[in-house]
Amino acid sequence: MIPYKLVCSMSGAEYPADSSHYLSPDKGPETPPGGCLRGVFDIVYDWAAAPRPVSREAISSSRARGSRRYLDLLPIARADSLPALIVGDTPLIDGGRFAEKRGFTRLCFKDDTRNPTGSYKDRASEIVVAKARELGIRRITAASTGNAATALAGMCASCGMEAVVFVPAGAPQGKLAQILAYGARVVRVQGTYDDAFELSLAATERFGWYNRNTAYNPYTIDGKRTAAFEIAEQMNWEVPDVVAVSSGDGVILSGLWKGFKDLRDAGLTDRVPRMLSVQAQGSNSIVRAMREGLDVPPTVRGASSMADSIVVEAPRNGIMAIRDLRESQGAAIDVTEEEIRSGVRDVARETGIFAEPSCAATAAGVVKAAEQGLIGRTERIVCVLTGNGLKDVAGALKCVQVPEPIEPTLDALPADLLG
Amino acid sequence: MIPYKLVCSMSGAEYPADSSHYLSPDKGPETPPGGCLRGVFDIVYDWAAAPRPVSREAISSSRARGSRRYLDLLPIARADSLPALIVGDTPLIDGGRFAEKRGFTRLCFKDDTRNPTGSYKDRASEIVVAKARELGIRRITAASTGNAATALAGMCASCGMEAVVFVPAGAPQGKLAQILAYGARVVRVQGTYDDAFELSLAATERFGWYNRNTAYNPYTIDGKRTAAFEIAEQMNWEVPDVVAVSSGDGVILSGLWKGFKDLRDAGLTDRVPRMLSVQAQGSNSIVRAMREGLDVPPTVRGASSMADSIVVEAPRNGIMAIRDLRESQGAAIDVTEEEIRSGVRDVARETGIFAEPSCAATAAGVVKAAEQGLIGRTERIVCVLTGNGLKDVAGALKCVQVPEPIEPTLDALPADLLG
Repeated sequence: MIPYKLVCSMSGAEYPADSSHYLSPDKGPETPPGGCLRGVFDIVYDWAAAPRPVSREAISSSRARGSRRYLDLLPIARADSLPALIVGDTPLIDGGRFAEKRGFTRLCFKDDTRNPTGSYKDRASEIVVAKARELGIRRITAASTGNAATALAGMCASCGMEAVVFVPAGAPQGKLAQILAYGARVVRVQGTYDDAFELSLAATERFGWYNRNTAYNPYTIDGKRTAAFEIAEQMNWEVPDVVAVSSGDGVILSGLWKGFKDLRDAGLTDRVPRMLSVQAQGSNSIVRAMREGLDVPPTVRGASSMADSIVVEAPRNGIMAIRDLRESQGAAIDVTEEEIRSGVRDVARETGIFAEPSCAATAAGVVKAAEQGLIGRTERIVCVLTGNGLKDVAGALKCVQVPEPIEPTLDALPADLLG
Repeated sequence: MIPYKLVCSMSGAEYPADSSHYLSPDKGPETPPGGCLRGVFDIVYDWAAAPRPVSREAISSSRARGSRRYLDLLPIARADSLPALIVGDTPLIDGGRFAEKRGFTRLCFKDDTRNPTGSYKDRASEIVVAKARELGIRRITAASTGNAATALAGMCASCGMEAVVFVPAGAPQGKLAQILAYGARVVRVQGTYDDAFELSLAATERFGWYNRNTAYNPYTIDGKRTAAFEIAEQMNWEVPDVVAVSSGDGVILSGLWKGFKDLRDAGLTDRVPRMLSVQAQGSNSIVRAMREGLDVPPTVRGASSMADSIVVEAPRNGIMAIRDLRESQGAAIDVTEEEIRSGVRDVARETGIFAEPSCAATAAGVVKAAEQGLIGRTERIVCVLTGNGLKDVAGALKCVQVPEPIEPTLDALPADLLG
């Protein structure tokens, strides 16, 4: 394992790796409205002190699958701390007809719908669970409206850990079914996601459980780097010009960005991409901050969208996400509900990837960003699809028309089918 | 491509590769009640006539992913006939706590829940779609209650083909949503699966569409071999002692068996496994045939189970499946609804794989087969998990208990959590 330190993303102060599991003690120059009052930690590696050289060749010749290929880049001491499930290892798919129809010449999709529990969140949960095992902790908790809790429950099931998940009482039964099947303890909280979040923090403090909350436990961001490692390797260590992903709290954005930075700092690549953050118009705090030149994302009261996985009033990792967008010379863009609905259909029909609304939004955002000149159609663009459409069947049903039944005879077939 | 011929599984008569897309013209010695009246074709390769040598080394050194690794073993002329989606390439996961708790020392799971559309059926649809492209056909049809239609729709979307899918009008909206998102034409037929099947055959005949129906188009069986290729390669070309899979029509069973036989005949391995077919007690035609020594599976009127993907009255590939079970010196076993429910929970909790009821049944069947001495707990057993639990959320909800909501305070937490 490469030695690392924790650096407060607000104050810049440095702390030893084992000084905290969660947030920095430091507050930022101004108190953000909502979200975290204390700085989220960056995990900063000392690449020069690597116990063995990190090289493209060592990685490319590895027979290991998933995160195990990149063990030397992880804050994990042993491969066998990782759950047995293979996380990530997801295909990079050519943009196909989706790209062609819209004039993109080098667009491709990172298909993270194929993770073990069906979403990108598996990447964070995998590393948090491995870290907990190395710390000798058995019970992990998280608050979530869906994918993050499912990912934690699945990773815990894979290695015999206990997951205690706090969800708002209104969470859909479908998401509950998956979490409960994995054997996680589910605490349904009468209240909002924020109430569930606060209760999970209180339980963490009172009972000494390990907490996986997003933008609270710094290993969630670090775990989310692994898609960047895979993209670089899949592109033969070329780095894309633009990496697009949708943002709620902004943790996946920061994880991807840090992944590409770490690859460069480790000497594996020679450049970094521009990041494109896509949000739903009804939940666009980061877009507003970028537009108005703010360092702290504004609270969007009553935020809403059919893309439920990215609906937040105050992004919990907003400050870091905005910093990262600027540092990458990137941009943020928002899309309408109609554009999200079209995105679900277009991505499924023109690539064969069934994506949940929150990541179909990303594809719609890429198209819009090209129209606005924020990205070029001949640039190498990777559009990250973060969640499986099966996670949100009700959302998908809003995007399609279910035909009426017919009699079982050839004559009853719709006329246009007979052509 | 290795030259092949079509051999009628009933009469044993041989036909040229291009003589038919579907069934053999020959009838069997006795007419089966329901199911196919004509023989399903075996695709028989002439390994000695391979244009280039097929070797373990050539495969293991390939950088290709999914079926492209095994192109020389497929009835496909060109890699670029295959859809861009990476089919298969799914992990072989150690049996973990599920195995340990039940005394299995070398059990593992082939996790086909991670296929592009979420089921093993992608393997068949991939090859059928590739074949259609090589034949210059653009419109493909199928009848299905769910996974096969979804797989066809997804594969067609991936490469710009047209899918026309016949489903019984009562098919669940969730499955419809995915098929429709992929842009397939869905014909909802007032009637049963059998009515939908017959109508798809009539349309095929009348309009010249290409038909992917299971146990009708011989390439469905051939496509389903690829999991056997992957299992062998993942086990370093050792062959498992037992391969277990659940059976409805029996096509996956025959595909896996043929895959292992072809590996042996091609000189890549030196033995074949015993096959274990698992069925739901309410839909156990193959089990009955094996028990009663029949060559033709009996019709199970009113077949039913919560494992809807394997519910059939008369298995359409039953005659071949029974032949294959006997040839492999294998067995068939059925499991109760309660055993299926436990299987869903146990597999999810003890491996982290969320499987649909039809394949949780397989895990339950493996346990039962060991109890009955049909298989040994120290044998190398591969249990194939064929469908994602997200395909059937209603089924999963029948297996778990959803807790009551609580007030958002620490005092309201269930007492046992505080320990």
